[in-house]
Amino acid sequence: MPARILIIGAGRSSSALIQYALNKSSELGWNVTVADADPSAAANKVKDHPRGNPVWLDVMKTNDRRELIGRADIVVSLLPAHLHLEVAQDCIRLKKHLVTASYVSHELYRLGDEARNRELIFMGEMGLDPGIDHMSAMQRINEIREKGGKIKAFRSFTGGLIAPESNDNPWGYKFTWNPRNVVLAGQGTAQYLNNDKLKFIPYQRLFKTTWDVHMEGIGDFEAYANRDSLLYREQYGLDDIPTILRGTLRYPGFAAAWAALVRIGLTNGDFPILDSEKITYHELMEAFAPAGPGSVKDRIAQMLGVDPNGDVMARLVWLGLFRKKKIKIPNATPALILERLLLDRWKLNPQDKDLIVMQHQVDYKLDGKLYRDISNLTMKGNDAEDTAMSRLVGLPMGIFVRLISQNKISSTGVHIPTMREVYEPVLEEMAEYGLAFTHKTVPLE
Amino acid sequence: MPARILIIGAGRSSSALIQYALNKSSELGWNVTVADADPSAAANKVKDHPRGNPVWLDVMKTNDRRELIGRADIVVSLLPAHLHLEVAQDCIRLKKHLVTASYVSHELYRLGDEARNRELIFMGEMGLDPGIDHMSAMQRINEIREKGGKIKAFRSFTGGLIAPESNDNPWGYKFTWNPRNVVLAGQGTAQYLNNDKLKFIPYQRLFKTTWDVHMEGIGDFEAYANRDSLLYREQYGLDDIPTILRGTLRYPGFAAAWAALVRIGLTNGDFPILDSEKITYHELMEAFAPAGPGSVKDRIAQMLGVDPNGDVMARLVWLGLFRKKKIKIPNATPALILERLLLDRWKLNPQDKDLIVMQHQVDYKLDGKLYRDISNLTMKGNDAEDTAMSRLVGLPMGIFVRLISQNKISSTGVHIPTMREVYEPVLEEMAEYGLAFTHKTVPLE
Repeated sequence: MPARILIIGAGRSSSALIQYALNKSSELGWNVTVADADPSAAANKVKDHPRGNPVWLDVMKTNDRRELIGRADIVVSLLPAHLHLEVAQDCIRLKKHLVTASYVSHELYRLGDEARNRELIFMGEMGLDPGIDHMSAMQRINEIREKGGKIKAFRSFTGGLIAPESNDNPWGYKFTWNPRNVVLAGQGTAQYLNNDKLKFIPYQRLFKTTWDVHMEGIGDFEAYANRDSLLYREQYGLDDIPTILRGTLRYPGFAAAWAALVRIGLTNGDFPILDSEKITYHELMEAFAPAGPGSVKDRIAQMLGVDPNGDVMARLVWLGLFRKKKIKIPNATPALILERLLLDRWKLNPQDKDLIVMQHQVDYKLDGKLYRDISNLTMKGNDAEDTAMSRLVGLPMGIFVRLISQNKISSTGVHIPTMREVYEPVLEEMAEYGLAFTHKTVPLE
Repeated sequence: MPARILIIGAGRSSSALIQYALNKSSELGWNVTVADADPSAAANKVKDHPRGNPVWLDVMKTNDRRELIGRADIVVSLLPAHLHLEVAQDCIRLKKHLVTASYVSHELYRLGDEARNRELIFMGEMGLDPGIDHMSAMQRINEIREKGGKIKAFRSFTGGLIAPESNDNPWGYKFTWNPRNVVLAGQGTAQYLNNDKLKFIPYQRLFKTTWDVHMEGIGDFEAYANRDSLLYREQYGLDDIPTILRGTLRYPGFAAAWAALVRIGLTNGDFPILDSEKITYHELMEAFAPAGPGSVKDRIAQMLGVDPNGDVMARLVWLGLFRKKKIKIPNATPALILERLLLDRWKLNPQDKDLIVMQHQVDYKLDGKLYRDISNLTMKGNDAEDTAMSRLVGLPMGIFVRLISQNKISSTGVHIPTMREVYEPVLEEMAEYGLAFTHKTVPLE
C-alpha cells in the first residue's frame, strides 16, 4: 500500500528514522514529508531525495499543522513530549495513525476509545528507552512463560553513554539527546516494587540510591530508579509480580557527583539568580556555600560531606564550577546555568562514538528452582552524527511505520509496543541494523 | 469621614481585625461588611452587631465580587495570596483602596502606576511577618540613622510558636495559621546577603542551615532563612548594606526534624501515592525507607544519619509516622498526607496560648565603634480563639484602615509599610493592644 509519511521534527534524534524512511520509500511506495520549525534542518536531512519533501512548520500554528497532517496517512511526531497531545487530537479528527518515542501521558491514553473507534493505531514509547526495552523485555518474559517459568522479579536498566575510547571526561557522559531532559529529568518521585513492598524515592535522594549492574565483558555500571516502574506491571502482564524496577545506567561515580549538584541547589529551576549575567561561576558557588573559613571548594566539600580532593569534587571542578569566569547569561536560574555549562562541557566531538547499554534481569521459578535470565545489549555509534542513540530511537519507529503501511498491525487504540505482532517483526528487522542481545541463565540461591 | 469597609475572608486570622473594625465602627462611622464562602463563618464573627453585615461570597464569581467591592470604600483581602490579584484589579477599576497581610507579588507591584494615577493606596505585607517586622525595623533603623549611625548589618527573625505552658509536644509547635502554608511554605530557594556575599539556600538544605537566636529572659531559638531577604535592601533604604537576613524562628530541634521530613520525601506534592487510602503510615514509611534488614524506623534513621533513639526520630515517632494505622485518604500526595497528620497532631487545644517572638539585630557604626541594637518582641495569646497571631496579623490592617478613612495617609500606589506616616501611628496604637519591644545596645568586637 503506498503511503504518505509525515515526520514532524528534524532534530538530533531524527537522522536514522528519516534515512530509513527515504531508503524504503521506493520499495514501499512512500512519500516522506519532513517538517521542522527550522527549514534548513529538514532540508539537510532530506537532501534532494526524489521521494522526500522538506517543509517548514510552526507546530503551534493549528491550521498549518492540520493541513500537513491532513495530507499524510501516518504521522511520526518527534516533538517534545508536551506537544504530542495536540498532534494526537488532529490525528483523531483527520483519521491518521500516530507514532512517537515519548512516554504515553494519561491524556494520550484517554484518546484510546476514539482511536479504536476510528480503527487507528497510536503507538507511543516506540524508541529505545522507552521502546526497545519494552519489546525485548516482552520477548524474554513470554519465552520464559512459555517454558512454564513463573516470573518473580523483573529489573531493566538502560543507559545512553559514551564509548570507552571516546570517554575523555571524569563523568563518563556526553550529550547524545536533549540536554534539558538530562538536567530536569524526573524531578518527581520515582516508584518501584521490591519484594511486594512499594518503594518511593524523592528526587532529593534519587542519585543517592543506586544499584550496581555488571555487564559481562563490558564493565560495571550504576543504576538509579527511572520514574514510575509500577506502570509496567499491568502493561507487561505481570500484575502479581513482587519486584519490578526500571533504572537508568551510568558509569560508576556519576550518581554521587550528580547528587552533589542537586544538593548544592544547581538543578533548581524555580527562581532566576540575582545579577546572573554579572557574576562568575566562583561567585555562584560562593552563594551556595555555607559561610566560614576556607576556600569555596573546601566549604562546598564540607557541606556535601565529601573529600575535597576526592572523585565528587574532581567532577565538579572539571565542569568549571569554581572558575572565576563570568556566567554571562542574564536572568538565569541555576538549572539554566548548569544546562548551558553542561552543553559546553559534555559536547559530543565530531569523531566521538556513543554507547548504548541495556540489561534485563528476569528472575523466575521453574520446577521448584529459582533462575535469573540476564540479557545484555550494547551498541556503539560511528560518530557524532551516526549515533547508536539515533539508530535505536529512530529505527523502531521507522519499522513500525512500515508494518502499518503494509497492513501488518491489527491492534487499534493507544498502545506501547508490548504486543507480539509488534515486537517480533521490529526486533527481527532491528537485527539487520546490528541489534543483538546476549542471553545467559544462572541459578539463584 | 464615614466609610464602608469590606473584609473578604472570615477565617482563622480574621477575628481580631473584624473585632477591631466593629468596635471602631460607631466612633468612625464605619459600616463593616464581612464576606466569606462559608456564610456561617462571617455570621459568627459579626454576630448581631448593628454596623456589621455578614455576606456570602464565592470570590471566583467575578460579578458578585465586583458588586460587593463596588459598594465599599476600603477593601481588606484576607484571601489566599494567589487570589489577591483579581481583587486588586477590581479595586483599580472601581477606585477602591486595598489592604492585605500577604507578600506583595511582582504582578501586584505592576499595578503601582495605575493605583497612583487614581490616588489609591494598595498596602500589602501589613500583618505580622510580613508587617510588624517591617514597621518596627524601620523605626529602629531610622532612629539609628538619625543619631548618625551607619548601618552595617540587619537581621530580623520572627516565629509564631506555642507558649511554654501550652507546649506539650516535642516539636514545640502547633498550628496558629494556615496549615498548608506550613507544609509547602518556601519550597523555593532562599537568598540573603552575608558580608557583601550573595547566599542561596535551596529548599533541600533550608532546614539544615540554621542560626541560634537568644532572647534575653525568654529563651533560645533557632532560625532558618525566610525567602528572599534581598528584596528588603531597597525597601528599607539599605541598598549598600553588606549583610541582610530575614529568618523564621522555631524552638531548637524543630529544623533538624523538619529536614528529616523533607529528606524522607514527605513534603513532596508532585504525585499521589498508589493506593493511599488502603495503606498504613507504617507502610508509607516502608515505601520511603531503603531496603535492608532492621525495622523501618531503624532504616529511616540510618538513611537520615541520625540516632534511632535520638531527638529527630522521637519527633517523627510522636507524629505517628510509624503507626500501623490506615491513612484513609484517597489519591493523596505525601504532602497532603503529612498536612492532614500535622493538622491532627499540631492542633491548638481550646485553652492553648500561642506565642509570637520577634528579634531585630541592627549592627551599626557610630563614632568609629561598632554596636548591635537588639529589639525583642514577645506576645502571648489568651486561648485558641484569641491568639497573639490573630491580633498581630489583624490589628495593623484595622489601624491602617482607620488611617485611610481619616485621610491620614498621603502615599498612593502599591506599598509595604516602611513609611513613617504609616509605621508611627500603627505602632503607637498597637502599644494599646500590648505590643512592646525591649531594646538593648551592646558594643561589638
